[in-house]
Amino acid sequence: MSKPLTLSLDAMGGDNAPEKIVEGVELALEKHASVNFMLFGDQAKIKPLLAKFTRAARRSRVIHTEEFVTDDEKPGHALRSGRNSSMRLAINAVSDGEADGVISAGNTGALMAMAKFVLKTIPGIDRPAIATSFPTRRHGSVMLDLGANITCNADNLVQFAVMGEVFARHVLGIAQPSVGILNVGSEEAKGSDAVKLAAAILANTKLPIKFQGFIEGDDIAAGAVDVVVTDGFTGNIALKASEGMARMFGAFLKEALAGSVMGMLGAFIARGALEKFKMRVDPRRYNGAMFLGLNGICVKSHGSTDALGFATAIDAAIKLINDNLNEGIREDVARLSGELQSRREAETV
Amino acid sequence: MSKPLTLSLDAMGGDNAPEKIVEGVELALEKHASVNFMLFGDQAKIKPLLAKFTRAARRSRVIHTEEFVTDDEKPGHALRSGRNSSMRLAINAVSDGEADGVISAGNTGALMAMAKFVLKTIPGIDRPAIATSFPTRRHGSVMLDLGANITCNADNLVQFAVMGEVFARHVLGIAQPSVGILNVGSEEAKGSDAVKLAAAILANTKLPIKFQGFIEGDDIAAGAVDVVVTDGFTGNIALKASEGMARMFGAFLKEALAGSVMGMLGAFIARGALEKFKMRVDPRRYNGAMFLGLNGICVKSHGSTDALGFATAIDAAIKLINDNLNEGIREDVARLSGELQSRREAETV
Repeated sequence: MSKPLTLSLDAMGGDNAPEKIVEGVELALEKHASVNFMLFGDQAKIKPLLAKFTRAARRSRVIHTEEFVTDDEKPGHALRSGRNSSMRLAINAVSDGEADGVISAGNTGALMAMAKFVLKTIPGIDRPAIATSFPTRRHGSVMLDLGANITCNADNLVQFAVMGEVFARHVLGIAQPSVGILNVGSEEAKGSDAVKLAAAILANTKLPIKFQGFIEGDDIAAGAVDVVVTDGFTGNIALKASEGMARMFGAFLKEALAGSVMGMLGAFIARGALEKFKMRVDPRRYNGAMFLGLNGICVKSHGSTDALGFATAIDAAIKLINDNLNEGIREDVARLSGELQSRREAETV
Repeated sequence: MSKPLTLSLDAMGGDNAPEKIVEGVELALEKHASVNFMLFGDQAKIKPLLAKFTRAARRSRVIHTEEFVTDDEKPGHALRSGRNSSMRLAINAVSDGEADGVISAGNTGALMAMAKFVLKTIPGIDRPAIATSFPTRRHGSVMLDLGANITCNADNLVQFAVMGEVFARHVLGIAQPSVGILNVGSEEAKGSDAVKLAAAILANTKLPIKFQGFIEGDDIAAGAVDVVVTDGFTGNIALKASEGMARMFGAFLKEALAGSVMGMLGAFIARGALEKFKMRVDPRRYNGAMFLGLNGICVKSHGSTDALGFATAIDAAIKLINDNLNEGIREDVARLSGELQSRREAETV
């Protein structure tokens, strides 16, 4: 058996920290009994919680700091003045080799800026991306970037495709994942120059990527491809628009059923089925945005998550580490770099 | 009473043309008994349908043409060689003053290219936009652009905001519509240069626009603002991603209820409530993308729509005409143009 994993947690990040962080550890240990945790944050707040959650207490070490990054802090500011923040120290633990991965429910921009600065990008990756897996009508898919990069050139998108493909193989367990680029139409002539050039590169790469070309917005939930590639502006908005729609759908359903006696009675009788349905679309079961392309595993939990959501983020980090995601990315990106380089040289001839 | 309206229809556009177009006219006449229709297309196909739909027959005139624009035709090609197509002739009827508005369920790109070429943009509008109204948790909102413009500068976005605001007042009946720009965060520092500059202009305009700043993807369905402003790439993907999510949600719900006896029984008892819910999210009730910023009313129906959906698109066109949408846009855009011009002059000083 391999040496037990250690995860470093920003215990002060997110709306419900440190309560739900510690409770999330307690929950995660049900499934991952041998994992160790480093909790960075205010010990005056964390220790009383550990008195309550005894399983978490046995596997956790508290590293005290009173500083933390606030939610509205700008990434640049957090980078300059947050050197002793719980977030920064938790990331440092990974670069120091003390932890195998870091998780925070705090400020996404600050986490990305710090993680990039401390862990550095994998050779051949120009910019890291934020990825998440999500349920579709077929099975789970992964989408990236979700907001780390507002504008992306073709090389960025191609690198996202390669990282996403490795993610789908290693983490989602799909043998030969299909990859598509999000666009406003499936015809080759549509879209921005960046997506058109990225599609041309992926159609001709020697990497064994099953590239399906362009997909449209409604193909995301349909599960038309396993890996959805897009820039961070579009990806962030597409994901959040879908989440908003799901919430609206749920609210409308509830209102309709609560609006009549027959509706309430039917809902009561069908409560098992409705519960199953709710489980299937429960966003907490898909919590955890992975930062891909860094020399180290870094997972961002939703800021307003509860303990179950944070436990899911812990679960995601453990999976990324155990599946050797970064080794897979390093190998494929090394091959890709050669290709992109030759293309650029050919262009300048 | 005012003179009865005349609408020109591309009877050959869309997957189910001309059947569902003629049937849509029949349905629309239930509500709008005095409207006249010009049906452009193949009379050999249209006339037998009119024999079946007698109400439609009484209020329609068929203008025969055997040419039509195909769904995969590029806009430029359609513009050059589709001069006698049903789509083009239907648009011409508006510029010739024979019809008050045009509706097509055909190729969106071709329709936009032709409508722009024939009808021209309203003075002060650089680019027309595609808009649609949609249900939210609060009430109906409108979003634009949905795909006419892949990239947009700040002036384009500001013009969309003004057109959308007029739309929300005239068509949705909201006295003082709130306007938001879609972005990856609500903080001022986030997003592309175009959205940041557009937000700065809207925050300082003298037009009486209730500008709420930036909104995020999940604010769309929440109904956080009445007018959602975005570029055509993002808007198209956000709308379609939401539609895809709604379909997934519906499919999952159906599967869950059909998966057990209690589920089926409950669904049967609650069928009235479930039917109400279905009605509320029925996409056919929101069919019709409006082309805003043109000297003429032009509505695009969904290509795969049925008769009810096409009737809704007809309904939308009639509303735009009766509500004098374009007069409202002309007035506000004239005021805006002066502002944008002064800003540009101030910049070059």
